[in-house]
Amino acid sequence: MSAKPKFAVVLSGCGVYDGAEIHEAVLTLLAIDRHGGSYQCFAPDRPQMHVVNHLTGQPAEESRNVLVESARIARGQIKDVAQFNPADFDAMIFPGGFGAAKNLCSFAVDGPDCSVDPATETAVKAMAAAKKPIGALCIAPALMAKIMGDGVDVTIGNDPGTAEAIEKMGAKHKTAGHGQVVVDAKHKLATSPCYMLDASISQIAEGADNTVKTLIGMMG
Amino acid sequence: MSAKPKFAVVLSGCGVYDGAEIHEAVLTLLAIDRHGGSYQCFAPDRPQMHVVNHLTGQPAEESRNVLVESARIARGQIKDVAQFNPADFDAMIFPGGFGAAKNLCSFAVDGPDCSVDPATETAVKAMAAAKKPIGALCIAPALMAKIMGDGVDVTIGNDPGTAEAIEKMGAKHKTAGHGQVVVDAKHKLATSPCYMLDASISQIAEGADNTVKTLIGMMG
Repeated sequence: MSAKPKFAVVLSGCGVYDGAEIHEAVLTLLAIDRHGGSYQCFAPDRPQMHVVNHLTGQPAEESRNVLVESARIARGQIKDVAQFNPADFDAMIFPGGFGAAKNLCSFAVDGPDCSVDPATETAVKAMAAAKKPIGALCIAPALMAKIMGDGVDVTIGNDPGTAEAIEKMGAKHKTAGHGQVVVDAKHKLATSPCYMLDASISQIAEGADNTVKTLIGMMG
Repeated sequence: MSAKPKFAVVLSGCGVYDGAEIHEAVLTLLAIDRHGGSYQCFAPDRPQMHVVNHLTGQPAEESRNVLVESARIARGQIKDVAQFNPADFDAMIFPGGFGAAKNLCSFAVDGPDCSVDPATETAVKAMAAAKKPIGALCIAPALMAKIMGDGVDVTIGNDPGTAEAIEKMGAKHKTAGHGQVVVDAKHKLATSPCYMLDASISQIAEGADNTVKTLIGMMG
């Protein structure tokens, strides 16, 4: 690993109902900086599955782009995930939010039969092939279950329906509580439930911090 | 003050270039929770001045609503600032971002001659009349300068042009560095520069935390 661990943070929009969960994303960036790391944000350059009005919770008649909206969280400093090169990073991490299950894959609508955004899948597989650690928060472990399969250990907290769908994709679900991190050493994957549990923002900070710390510990 | 200090957090959209600065907003919520407080987010129900594509930095041909976009940061738990009642809160705080100077007032385009969103102005004046403390981060102190005038001490960091414009609105500018909080005891106002300086996300967390701590110390 580098003297200053380099993280790729993959976002999926901007807002819990149709994009990346904003608290999880920001607190992931904070955790990386506090642990002496640097970060580069990425997102796929594609339309969002849909746009949700976060005041009413209802879908809106609009179209937005995942990369463009993710740029709000990244203050403009973001790249297309199709440009991701594992040689440039020591770890990769996915905050949650419905965007991970609507824009990075279609798990929110298709369940275990979901498809995965091709550029995101390529990036994850390249990182795994390079034997570098990957983290996923909240619902993003469902995406890892779909891409990795192979009995990989993941957690999305304790929701039985989601856990069952994850196991149908070939992963193994482990129940976890606030701030806990489930580690699969073979696949170098660390997952934590965050807002998949009813959580305070301090508990999200703890989950993100523990996950980032775990990833640093897994660097070769 | 209440056993659990209650904060009103006033947002101005979702994204540094046309709304609330997302890191400052989230780290303000985190600071409140970590100091044992509770929060309720507010924003004005009005169109944004404009929409900026945060990937390119260019204005986009779209229209968005300040309250609806702010709801992304608040995970849907937000109220129209026109409903704000100072009796329900112990303190009020404004994260920054261009939204504070484009949507809560027109400082970004009109400078010292700016107008203020009427519901926001009413809320701030009601809080000040109730002698309850108010905090403002980044460029939001310009809004306080316009509303309060009267020689109120504020900081926006160290930018000479902005400081001059602030003094033209009747406030007094004090230079401040990372994490520092300028307090005006008479007006019960606490301000901190945050991203008005070139800052890391950990420095933003420190600025938000110090401001929240200061507000708690100013509660009657």
